[in-house]
Amino acid sequence: MPHFTLEYSADLEDLVDIADVVEEVRAAAVETGLFALGGIRVRAIRCEYYAIADGRDGLNFLAMLLRLGEGRDLAARKKAGEHIFKKLSHFLDPLFADEGFALSFDMQVNDKETSWKRNSIHDLLVAEARHG
Amino acid sequence: MPHFTLEYSADLEDLVDIADVVEEVRAAAVETGLFALGGIRVRAIRCEYYAIADGRDGLNFLAMLLRLGEGRDLAARKKAGEHIFKKLSHFLDPLFADEGFALSFDMQVNDKETSWKRNSIHDLLVAEARHG
Amino acid sequence: MPHFTLEYSADLEDLVDIADVVEEVRAAAVETGLFALGGIRVRAIRCEYYAIADGRDGLNFLAMLLRLGEGRDLAARKKAGEHIFKKLSHFLDPLFADEGFALSFDMQVNDKETSWKRNSIHDLLVAEARHG
Repeated sequence: MPHFTLEYSADLEDLVDIADVVEEVRAAAVETGLFALGGIRVRAIRCEYYAIADGRDGLNFLAMLLRLGEGRDLAARKKAGEHIFKKLSHFLDPLFADEGFALSFDMQVNDKETSWKRNSIHDLLVAEARHG
Repeated sequence: MPHFTLEYSADLEDLVDIADVVEEVRAAAVETGLFALGGIRVRAIRCEYYAIADGRDGLNFLAMLLRLGEGRDLAARKKAGEHIFKKLSHFLDPLFADEGFALSFDMQVNDKETSWKRNSIHDLLVAEARHG
Repeated sequence: MPHFTLEYSADLEDLVDIADVVEEVRAAAVETGLFALGGIRVRAIRCEYYAIADGRDGLNFLAMLLRLGEGRDLAARKKAGEHIFKKLSHFLDPLFADEGFALSFDMQVNDKETSWKRNSIHDLLVAEARHG
């Protein structure tokens, strides 16, 4: 049940295709091998209003938060996070050059005692694998 | 001070009325009896860009996160969460049938040491109850 | 690495300029002296769909969440949070008078073991300070 949420400054849309960014994160998450494919959900939230550093225009940010279920130890989470961050950071390389760009990635582990889910994507993938 | 935030894939708007979804959650939260009426805040955030599972089109998600104040024990939180999830899951039943839909619900408890609030809705409700 | 995210009911845009709200928070964050200037990122997320209290129209909310890095003790975090909340609350005073408005502010500390960042804004500010 990994949830990747990317909050970003609206002007970033002029500098990079956000659809490509979420796809980059999704692919990197698959590569880690840590997550069931059907549980991966990456999304981006456009922030029209923002104020960064000293408040000037021209600065941008992308802040990614991963919430995932319990059951993966710290070493596995660090390794996976490192991989995903490196890929994303590399993908966004050009953005760091110009007027100032801040990228961040943090991780939270959901409490399994108060976690509910229902997901028909897993079944869909299994059915396809069988009949495909 | 329960805060329900529902992040959802934009295409979900073609399949269900999001206004109905937030109202369903609000009503279910009231039914639990766990929250002061004036503190309940349910909202949905549309995610225009997202990538799910193997990245194909046609998949959708709704991810709900509840942040609430301290002072309710785990058993009470589990019971309330169970009720709200069941109602929401039932309401969204049709979505699971077709192309794949992932619903999730997690809960976080805010640290009361670093929690501030100011709310004129409680007073409004009290005044109405008195004069109504 | 302080991240301030403000979720708000869409109708709030008729009552206050959200650009002014995020700037107010940014300036207050600077005043605390707790954060490196180049790390401050304040943003607001408009919630088109929401349901508050008994579900009536006319109610509004603004819910601010601060996620920050480890390394600041509770007393420092409380003092900084108090300052920021007071400024924001004062700024929004008029909103509490009419139909009901709920303001909240909570804080979360990111786990430094699973935290990654890359930020060219710090360097930009240093370079300007040197050459300015």
